Amino acid sequence: MQKEDVLIAGEWRAASGSDTFQAANPATKETLAPLYPVSSWADCDAALECASEAFEVMSKMSGDQIAKFLGAYADLIEANSTKLVEIANQETGLPASPRLGDVELPRTTGQLRQAADAARNGTWKQPTIDSANGIRSCLGPLGPVCVFGPNNFPFAFNSAAGGDFAAAIAAGNPVIAKANTSHPGTTKALAELAAEAAVATGMPTGTVQLIYRTSHEDGAKLVSDPRIGATGYTGSRHAGLTLKKAADEAGKPIYLELSSVNPVVILPGSIKENGIEATASEFSGSCLMGTGQFCTNPGLVVLIQDENTDELISTIGQQFENAPDGVLLSSGVEKSLSESHKILQEAGAEVVSGTGEGKNDGFSCRNTLLKASGAEFIASPEALQTEAFGNCSLIVVAKDLDEATGVLSSLEGNLTGCIYSAKDGSDDAAYDHLEPVLRRKVGRLLNDKMPTGVAVSPAMNHGGPFPATGHPGFTAVGIPASIVRFGALHCYDNVRQDRLPDILKDSYSGPAQRFIDGKWS
Amino acid sequence: MQKEDVLIAGEWRAASGSDTFQAANPATKETLAPLYPVSSWADCDAALECASEAFEVMSKMSGDQIAKFLGAYADLIEANSTKLVEIANQETGLPASPRLGDVELPRTTGQLRQAADAARNGTWKQPTIDSANGIRSCLGPLGPVCVFGPNNFPFAFNSAAGGDFAAAIAAGNPVIAKANTSHPGTTKALAELAAEAAVATGMPTGTVQLIYRTSHEDGAKLVSDPRIGATGYTGSRHAGLTLKKAADEAGKPIYLELSSVNPVVILPGSIKENGIEATASEFSGSCLMGTGQFCTNPGLVVLIQDENTDELISTIGQQFENAPDGVLLSSGVEKSLSESHKILQEAGAEVVSGTGEGKNDGFSCRNTLLKASGAEFIASPEALQTEAFGNCSLIVVAKDLDEATGVLSSLEGNLTGCIYSAKDGSDDAAYDHLEPVLRRKVGRLLNDKMPTGVAVSPAMNHGGPFPATGHPGFTAVGIPASIVRFGALHCYDNVRQDRLPDILKDSYSGPAQRFIDGKWS
Repeated sequence: MQKEDVLIAGEWRAASGSDTFQAANPATKETLAPLYPVSSWADCDAALECASEAFEVMSKMSGDQIAKFLGAYADLIEANSTKLVEIANQETGLPASPRLGDVELPRTTGQLRQAADAARNGTWKQPTIDSANGIRSCLGPLGPVCVFGPNNFPFAFNSAAGGDFAAAIAAGNPVIAKANTSHPGTTKALAELAAEAAVATGMPTGTVQLIYRTSHEDGAKLVSDPRIGATGYTGSRHAGLTLKKAADEAGKPIYLELSSVNPVVILPGSIKENGIEATASEFSGSCLMGTGQFCTNPGLVVLIQDENTDELISTIGQQFENAPDGVLLSSGVEKSLSESHKILQEAGAEVVSGTGEGKNDGFSCRNTLLKASGAEFIASPEALQTEAFGNCSLIVVAKDLDEATGVLSSLEGNLTGCIYSAKDGSDDAAYDHLEPVLRRKVGRLLNDKMPTGVAVSPAMNHGGPFPATGHPGFTAVGIPASIVRFGALHCYDNVRQDRLPDILKDSYSGPAQRFIDGKWS
Repeated sequence: MQKEDVLIAGEWRAASGSDTFQAANPATKETLAPLYPVSSWADCDAALECASEAFEVMSKMSGDQIAKFLGAYADLIEANSTKLVEIANQETGLPASPRLGDVELPRTTGQLRQAADAARNGTWKQPTIDSANGIRSCLGPLGPVCVFGPNNFPFAFNSAAGGDFAAAIAAGNPVIAKANTSHPGTTKALAELAAEAAVATGMPTGTVQLIYRTSHEDGAKLVSDPRIGATGYTGSRHAGLTLKKAADEAGKPIYLELSSVNPVVILPGSIKENGIEATASEFSGSCLMGTGQFCTNPGLVVLIQDENTDELISTIGQQFENAPDGVLLSSGVEKSLSESHKILQEAGAEVVSGTGEGKNDGFSCRNTLLKASGAEFIASPEALQTEAFGNCSLIVVAKDLDEATGVLSSLEGNLTGCIYSAKDGSDDAAYDHLEPVLRRKVGRLLNDKMPTGVAVSPAMNHGGPFPATGHPGFTAVGIPASIVRFGALHCYDNVRQDRLPDILKDSYSGPAQRFIDGKWS
């Protein structure tokens, strides 16, 4: 059977290496026909070499040129949306409408266009001028970027089209995309359009390259190669930490999004104010949406025991029972979720509802609600904050505010953390006590709102302290901030005017805000 | 004999552990009287605990309050400058005047005051507001910061007073200072003033703490402790990489400044234009200043062989011979420099001038000039770019432009890189060829200027790609950029107005530039 080609040095060509893999349709568990290659090091090496050459050309390009490419690519994605949605639906089981076609695809083209605007206006570069000392600085591209995309957003986080891709390109870096192995066909279809847009807009060969899979060893070699500038990785913690170790040892930046249980504290006054049914529904809806397969899925709820606690838990349990068991993205997700159920139970969590096989033809687990006491959580914080990626959540019932504080204190870093509190002020003392503890543990702090939605906003932080990500200062979503990750700080000292980047010249008249002699202008 | 006290939890108290060490006067090699303790883990643990408590208080403080502390501290340093300069002169051998008293001390108080301004105006926080989505974000403090200061700037990079200290405090984090063991008395004197300023301005106990030395194992434990927010380290590459490994594994940010040979390319036209004598003098002056003990000392010169090359080298050699051999900061620096001489020679570098013991009563080595061919450098790039910290430089003579390109291509990351080129345009083609290669390797690119001076400027980048530092996006000098390193990105989603940090409230009327709904205001 024929193997699909990798995209290296501007050519779709046979991969090095002989191993192959196939994706599956998660809704039916049927193996999909195309055979995708596992690349050996020769492909990685060739991609790195070509990316290095592309980098030299891109480094000298104007933001306008890069913006044209990103815009043309967004247009091509829209023109081919029907086909893209069909492939992604087959490979992920995510609904073609509204999810893939009406929400995720427009989000993806929107991100590409926002990145194009940022490339054009250059504000992400933070141009700074000190006339008296003759020193000027701005961010510039840092080298070829390798992007590993996750399984749960086949478009918006795709390694060849998503947020990391758009940010890396906007900063002026070529991308080596490593497809997520659960949707190689979607990634290939996107990379074809990217390559077409690159040719049409005069980008260098090697602006976008695609491989599907490598050995773990070659993956580690790739992110630590001297020719690499940085890596963006979104996926499982285990694989991410292996890559982080290799990149760290080589001193190469790696931006990771690894795991998060996204604690939601629902304070007693809030439950009274909103009612048990509404509180339960808001949580269940968020937790089971997309079969719980969001980075910001609320996997941990913290309650403080009072007269409503038991009824709230049983109401959520009933809602979990009544809701359909959604389809999971792959057999791997199914297996890992089922293992997480076991780890949580072995650590003392009690089943309120679910566990076991889901009721549908695809990869699935039952909607699962578990519960534990605050004391149990504090005794086994590591095991009880195991991420159960999918339609599962753990409710922790603290006996009082102090125990709830202890629960939050024992949390690892998370992407988000939320506190629901009453509008009448009855929860304010508890809020003030808990907020500072939670603030330090999360990237995005919410009030009275479930964390699942991640707006593409300049004010967004889709990041947080380790192990949610690798560094608490960076966000993977939101432009221009996400672009900054793929920039190096370039200072020019006594450099002649005509040799400066345009954005640092005296003659610059573009739209970027510049910090000149202590003032914004 | 009595041991000096550590500063933990607001008290000067006896250190845990029984080992001690003493500093020496580098100008005389005499051991200085005070005995300083090597702390065991108990001191680190106590400092971490107290810093965590201080962090909770500081997190809620206004920028004004923090600014008052930094300003009061700067005032106290000035009021005690005579005593500070005397101790630092004894411990470092650096001249009391002009270096310590007239240059470094004012630089240090200037940095503290710039940091105070930044804490007050809050612009470093990058406040961003998206009204439509109800999302707001800014940088906030990330937790207690551990600072390891280097040997070569007893004030300006001191762990209890220098750039990392000022930046960490301005961001709202308490500091655990780990003294450089070659100037413990200077660090103690500074920490005393810091503690006095902290009390006077109502800062929490634990804002500043001081230990002098730990085992390597405890140092690694310290930077990776869950209670630590981040670490700033300036020093030797070997010790820095050990700390980096520990911090990386724990997912804790660590900002490193490790080593740099600061390549200076002097193109043929420039030598013709400026003359051999002037070119040689400019280089020798920069290389031997402060006995070459600057992070940005020009340790590597790249020439392209022409009719002036040999005379330039012999002129520099003569200047090195004629200049006094300066005093080195410690026996450790002397030993390490002497070892570097050997490594470079074993890798093929030929002695033009110097090597061996210096001619003075202190720690010293002869002013040393070595040379190698471009081909030799390309064959042994690792050994031939060994940092020889001190009064030593290696001249590499490339046979042509291509070989010079090869030399630059084989460089590791550096803090600075410089190209001297003729004003008449005769070097322009060579410049255009070399600049992109050098640009990617360095943080600060210079024209026609030696790299030794590091202005405290918002446009400065005192940073660069690994192994010069740990991340190419950050600078250790320059405010507000250096403060950003010690911030975590805090996003607020749907958070009620009265619960937001002041800088994100609708009612904010302070001086910080805010990015509101896509516009700066």
